[in-house]
Amino acid sequence: MIMEIKLRKIGILGGGQLAQMMVLKSHELGFETFILSQKKNDPAALACHNHIIGQFNKISDVKKIVEKVDVLTFESEFVSSDVLLWLDQNYKKKVFPNPKLMSHLADRLFQKKTLKKFNLPQSDFFDFYGYEEFLKKSVSRKLPLVLKKRKEGYDGKGTYIVKSLSEKKLKTFIESSTEGFIAEDFIPFKRELAITFSRTSGHTVHVFPVVETKQTDYRCDWVKGPIAHPKIKSFITKVKEFLNKNNYIGVIAFELFDTEKDILINEIAPRVHNSSHYTMNACEHGQFEAHLRAILRIKELNPKPVVKAFAMANLIGNGKSSFKLKTPEQGHLHWYNKSENVKGRKMGHINTYGSTPEKALQLALQMREKVMS
Amino acid sequence: MIMEIKLRKIGILGGGQLAQMMVLKSHELGFETFILSQKKNDPAALACHNHIIGQFNKISDVKKIVEKVDVLTFESEFVSSDVLLWLDQNYKKKVFPNPKLMSHLADRLFQKKTLKKFNLPQSDFFDFYGYEEFLKKSVSRKLPLVLKKRKEGYDGKGTYIVKSLSEKKLKTFIESSTEGFIAEDFIPFKRELAITFSRTSGHTVHVFPVVETKQTDYRCDWVKGPIAHPKIKSFITKVKEFLNKNNYIGVIAFELFDTEKDILINEIAPRVHNSSHYTMNACEHGQFEAHLRAILRIKELNPKPVVKAFAMANLIGNGKSSFKLKTPEQGHLHWYNKSENVKGRKMGHINTYGSTPEKALQLALQMREKVMS
Repeated sequence: MIMEIKLRKIGILGGGQLAQMMVLKSHELGFETFILSQKKNDPAALACHNHIIGQFNKISDVKKIVEKVDVLTFESEFVSSDVLLWLDQNYKKKVFPNPKLMSHLADRLFQKKTLKKFNLPQSDFFDFYGYEEFLKKSVSRKLPLVLKKRKEGYDGKGTYIVKSLSEKKLKTFIESSTEGFIAEDFIPFKRELAITFSRTSGHTVHVFPVVETKQTDYRCDWVKGPIAHPKIKSFITKVKEFLNKNNYIGVIAFELFDTEKDILINEIAPRVHNSSHYTMNACEHGQFEAHLRAILRIKELNPKPVVKAFAMANLIGNGKSSFKLKTPEQGHLHWYNKSENVKGRKMGHINTYGSTPEKALQLALQMREKVMS
Repeated sequence: MIMEIKLRKIGILGGGQLAQMMVLKSHELGFETFILSQKKNDPAALACHNHIIGQFNKISDVKKIVEKVDVLTFESEFVSSDVLLWLDQNYKKKVFPNPKLMSHLADRLFQKKTLKKFNLPQSDFFDFYGYEEFLKKSVSRKLPLVLKKRKEGYDGKGTYIVKSLSEKKLKTFIESSTEGFIAEDFIPFKRELAITFSRTSGHTVHVFPVVETKQTDYRCDWVKGPIAHPKIKSFITKVKEFLNKNNYIGVIAFELFDTEKDILINEIAPRVHNSSHYTMNACEHGQFEAHLRAILRIKELNPKPVVKAFAMANLIGNGKSSFKLKTPEQGHLHWYNKSENVKGRKMGHINTYGSTPEKALQLALQMREKVMS
């Protein structure tokens, strides 16, 4: 007799650490995973059940994976519009978050306009294409201004801060793209915060705790929490409205500027996010399980912390040609198993607990020193 | 330039669920795993980095894995003495727990004698080989007596309860083995308990919370905790002495009878154990991480629960030729990814939290109903 055990088949476009952590959780939850990525030693490829070599921006490669799975999701928002719109036309019912919405959010101008429509707090902005247009539109604005390419910028790539209109690099930056830009008011913030939501069908939205995040060289360095803020309650209400109206399915992260009197949205990531890696150990259910449950339309989830306070420190590649990974004596190491120690690349992270966010952070930073030395 | 990232290489003899859960934790901790097991779709084989097909009772197969790894460990105590003693002679420094000790503990008579030496509480016993010897030695004892084969019994296999000396099956049972038996007094217990320790070098012993375990058909059905017992403190002291004197390295579990006035050891498992699967979600560090840390000689570990109370329910195969696995709406599913749904086989488990052990258990049992229906 053939014993058939039907496991749900989850497909992920991309094979980096975010996909790897979804794959490891999928093993536990009894899902069969399919990864589409370019190299057989990509982090998620080393842990998944089925690896398909290919590019997530090639319709013919995406076709190979989407036909094999029950549900398809993304580890990156930078999937080409072509692929997203093709998925929307042909496989809308099994691709989450909705590919058309993904494609809209990937355009910063559309993102800003959408946020405005839902009255979500953000810095003032205008959009432009060329250098002359920028000069004209910026006349009435106060410097500095933050320029961002409309598409494909992350971790500071595609971003330029204009302090003076006579800067030589300004023109070069603007001429590097023909897809357009947005210019935002520079926000003198007290600190940066982040918050992650998980929504599934039936208007069920779960909210993870707010954290303070520290960015160094445009890259997340550490996170600590939970953080209280007087404006967060009304912010959450507005985000829920935004997610419900768009029927958003999956995890979505908001990076925020805390200006003391207000919180303003800096970035949105429609996916699992570095700022919520702490949830893997600090919450009853972490963000990777949250995303998998959301796309499978499982409504219950407990995003609440099981500990008083927590922190996360990223392990950043130091470029050393040879090093021996050490296990931290305390805290939780999450290693991404990247094949090379490239300087500046995210190699892993450490989650810690503490009686206060500060104590948890101190421990995380102390442990980090030892891991990659 | 070649970027070499040196990851520690962990070898495991066996490819079942205990190995699988060590492998999943190893991915997180940045260890490269090597599994020796017979089938390429064994649970751990599906998740590990390197799978070697072979038998852990064949020296030539074990040689293939032990030479590739930095540290070798076991998922089962039923490795033949030949292999254990060969490992002890040739690779003692990288095999944990110590293979000679493993071989001794695998013999119930030696185990009972060792426990006696350390004054650890257990039922009275005698040993015998044949039927006549049993009849002679049992004359002065009160029935029932529990007979256990000296080697290879688990989950009730190799166990026989003698209620009357005239039972026909008694002789058949005794004649089924030439390796000898022990006969123990039958303990009329109030409930069964279990406790797990993790010890690494330098006399560092970590103790996980005590749980109540429910056995059905000699198999663990569920676990709840934490449980308090007036005798546990002195019991822990004695176990620590036993582990330190034997320089035990790794996780070890004790199954106990709670007779109300005392606790008596029923079984010892020198490995990660079903009764501590709850630690994966309820403790800061779970037993699988504890075992890996212990064999790598990492001294710090927090075995304390992060929640007030917890439970675990096993998912037992029901033999249905085709079923679709469902994700429980609450709690933490751990699915072992076995290739067949064999009746009575452990297929996975669910960990839950609660304000009391009873409430956590109620939730675990409720969720279990839905998962394999």
